[in-house]
Amino acid sequence: MKNSTDAVRQTVDARIAELIKEQAHVTLDDVPSSGLMRGVIEQALHSSEGGKRLRALLTLAAGTVASGNSGDLSLTDQAIIDIACAIEIFQTGALVHDDIIDDSDTRRGVPAAHKGLSTVFRSFASSINATSPLSNIPHTQHQTCEDVGTGLGIMLGDLLATMSLGVVSQAAATGPALLHEAVVTAFLDMQKEVEIGQVLDVADTAVPLDRPDLIIKNCLSVFRWKTASYTTIAPLRLGFICAGFAPDTAKTWAQRIGTPLGTAFQLADDLIDVQRKHSTSGKPLGGDIKEGKRTVLLADALAYSTEADRKVLTDIYSRETRDDGDISPVIDIFERSGAIERSLARIETLWNSSTDEIAVWQDSLAISDADTSRLVDTSRLFLPQIHTR
Amino acid sequence: MKNSTDAVRQTVDARIAELIKEQAHVTLDDVPSSGLMRGVIEQALHSSEGGKRLRALLTLAAGTVASGNSGDLSLTDQAIIDIACAIEIFQTGALVHDDIIDDSDTRRGVPAAHKGLSTVFRSFASSINATSPLSNIPHTQHQTCEDVGTGLGIMLGDLLATMSLGVVSQAAATGPALLHEAVVTAFLDMQKEVEIGQVLDVADTAVPLDRPDLIIKNCLSVFRWKTASYTTIAPLRLGFICAGFAPDTAKTWAQRIGTPLGTAFQLADDLIDVQRKHSTSGKPLGGDIKEGKRTVLLADALAYSTEADRKVLTDIYSRETRDDGDISPVIDIFERSGAIERSLARIETLWNSSTDEIAVWQDSLAISDADTSRLVDTSRLFLPQIHTR
Repeated sequence: MKNSTDAVRQTVDARIAELIKEQAHVTLDDVPSSGLMRGVIEQALHSSEGGKRLRALLTLAAGTVASGNSGDLSLTDQAIIDIACAIEIFQTGALVHDDIIDDSDTRRGVPAAHKGLSTVFRSFASSINATSPLSNIPHTQHQTCEDVGTGLGIMLGDLLATMSLGVVSQAAATGPALLHEAVVTAFLDMQKEVEIGQVLDVADTAVPLDRPDLIIKNCLSVFRWKTASYTTIAPLRLGFICAGFAPDTAKTWAQRIGTPLGTAFQLADDLIDVQRKHSTSGKPLGGDIKEGKRTVLLADALAYSTEADRKVLTDIYSRETRDDGDISPVIDIFERSGAIERSLARIETLWNSSTDEIAVWQDSLAISDADTSRLVDTSRLFLPQIHTR
Repeated sequence: MKNSTDAVRQTVDARIAELIKEQAHVTLDDVPSSGLMRGVIEQALHSSEGGKRLRALLTLAAGTVASGNSGDLSLTDQAIIDIACAIEIFQTGALVHDDIIDDSDTRRGVPAAHKGLSTVFRSFASSINATSPLSNIPHTQHQTCEDVGTGLGIMLGDLLATMSLGVVSQAAATGPALLHEAVVTAFLDMQKEVEIGQVLDVADTAVPLDRPDLIIKNCLSVFRWKTASYTTIAPLRLGFICAGFAPDTAKTWAQRIGTPLGTAFQLADDLIDVQRKHSTSGKPLGGDIKEGKRTVLLADALAYSTEADRKVLTDIYSRETRDDGDISPVIDIFERSGAIERSLARIETLWNSSTDEIAVWQDSLAISDADTSRLVDTSRLFLPQIHTR
C-alpha cells in the first residue's frame, strides 16, 4: 500500500501543476500588468504544493471500483485522475481564502498565499517603476502592499475555484454527454457545502461557553459542511460517478460512508493540536487553544471536568486573547477531564460506522473484495492516530 | 423599447431572488450557527438588488435570436432567463469581492456587503449570547466584528459565484445533453477572465506616470478582461449558444461584437466620474481621481496637455493620497487638454466597430432585421451618454 500510494501521490502532484498551467494559459497582451499575472500563477503553483493528497487518493479508490453495472457510463483513468486533482486544486483555493479570513501568516511552514502575493506585488511594482525616475510605488486609497497582497489572495482563491471547475468540466467532457451534468453538479454541491461550512465556522466563536451541548452540536455541523463535504463525501461521490454508478446511488453511498469518516478525520485533526506525544506534524501545539476555538475537546472538558477546572477554562476562553502560557494548563485539563480519551472514543465509533457502511455498500452493490479492501485501506489513511496506536 | 425593457427587468429581478433562495436552500441542523447562515443569505438578496440588468437584457436579446439553423439544440425561454440571471448573480458576487479589495464602504448608495455582514454578525453574536450571562462576544485572534464581516464577505462572494454556476448548470440541463458542456464552459471562461482582469487592474497603480502609452495599453487590457468579459462578451456568447448557434460560432461573434462594445461601456463609465454636466448617477464626481486610478482620461491628458498642466497632474497623482480639493483642477486639465473629447471620440469609434460587426454577423448568418434591431437597441443601452447627446 505504502509504495503504490507514494507513486499515486507523485502522479497527482505532477498533474496538478500541469493542470494549473493549462487552465491559466490565456494570451494576454504585452502590457505591464501581465507581469503581475505571471507572479500570481507562480504563487498558485507554490500554494498547491505539499498536500497529503488524501482527497485525490480517495477519489481514485472510489473511481476505479469495477461497478460492472454500467461500464459504458464510466470515465477513463486519466479523466478520473484529473477530477481527483481538481478536488485538490479546489482545496488549495479554499485554504487561500481561509488564511485571509483567519489572518494566518503561514501555511505548511511557508508564508500564506496572500503574504507571498504581497511580496510578488512589491517586486512587480519596483520592476516596473525602475524604468521611471518620476514616480514612486503608488499606494492608492492608503493601501499598503500588504493590503494589495490580500486583494490578490482573494482573486487567487477565486481563480483556483474556477480552474478546479474548468478541470472537472473538461475531464467530464471526455465521457458520455450525460455524465457532464452529474459530475459538475457533484462538484458544485461540494463547493457550496464548503462555503456554507465556512460561514458556520465563523459563528463558532459566538457560542457561549456555558453550553457545551451547543458547542458540540455546532462543531459537528461545521465538521459535516466544512470538512467532510470535500474531504470524504465529494471524493467518494465523484469517484463513484466516474466508476459508472448512477448519480443518485453515488450521492447516497458517499454520504453514508463519507460523513462519519470525514467527521472522524476532523476530530483527529483537532486532537493533533493537543497531543503532546504526537507533536510531529510540524505545527506547534495549542494553536486552536490560542485562537479560542470552540472544539469538541473544549466542550467535553467543560462538560466533564471539576468545577474548579471548568472555571479555569471559562476564564481563559472568555478573554479576548490567549498566549503561550495558557496552552499547558488547558491541555492538562483536557487530559484529566477525559476529553482526549472521549475524542479518541468518538473517532473509533465513527470509524466503525464508516466501515459498517462500506460493508453494506459491498453487499448491496456486489462489489469485489479487492475493491472493498482498497477503499478501506485508503480510508484508513485519514486516521493515522487511530491506526498506529 | 422602454416599456418592454422595464418589464424584462422586473421579471429578471424577481427571478434572481427566487434563484438565490433556491440555490441557498440546504437543510441545516438546528444549531446556533444556522442563524448566521440565514443572515448571510439575507445579505445575498440585498446585494443583488438595484442593478440595471444590462447584462441580462443583452443575454436575452442574443438568446432569442431565431437562428433557424439548429433549432433543436436551443433552450427554452425560461432556461435563457435563468442563464441571464446567473450572469447578474455572478456580478453581484464579483462586486462583493471587489468592494473588499478596494476597501469600499458603500455600493449603490447602501453599505457594501462586507459592511452589512459585520452588522449581521454583531446582531447574531449578541442574540446568541443574550442567553448566556457567562460570556461576552468573543473576538478570537484579535479579530473585530469588522474583520469577521470581511471574512463573511469573502465567503458570500464565493457562494454567489458557486450559486451562479449552479443556476447555469441546472438551466442547461433542461436542454440537449451536448449543450451542458458548451454553456458551462462559456460561463467558466467568463469567470476566469474577470478574475484575471481583476489581477491586471491591481497592477494599474504601478504603471509609471511618464508612460501614458503604457497606461492606455494597460487600461484597454483591463477593460477587455475585467469588464467586457462579463458585460458584453459572455452575455452574447451564452445568448447565442442558448439560441442554438454552434458553440464556436457563438464564441467568435460574441468576441467580435462584444469586445468593442464592452470597451466603450467602460470608457463611458470612466467619463461619468468627470463629466460635470452629467453628474446624475448618484456617484459624487472625481472618485477615480481621489483613488489615483490610471484611466485613459489621465493618459490622454498626460500625453496632450501643456507642460505646466502635465506637471500639475504628475504632482497630484504621485502623492500617496488625494483629496476633494484635487478634483476640480484635474477635471479642468482633462477638459482643456481635450482628454474628455478624445474619450468621447474613442467611444464613438468603438460603437461603430461593434455595429459594423453586428452588420457582418447579420449577413453571414442570415439573421432577420427584427432580431438585428433588437440586438442593436439593447447594445445602445450600454452607452446612454453617446446616444442622448
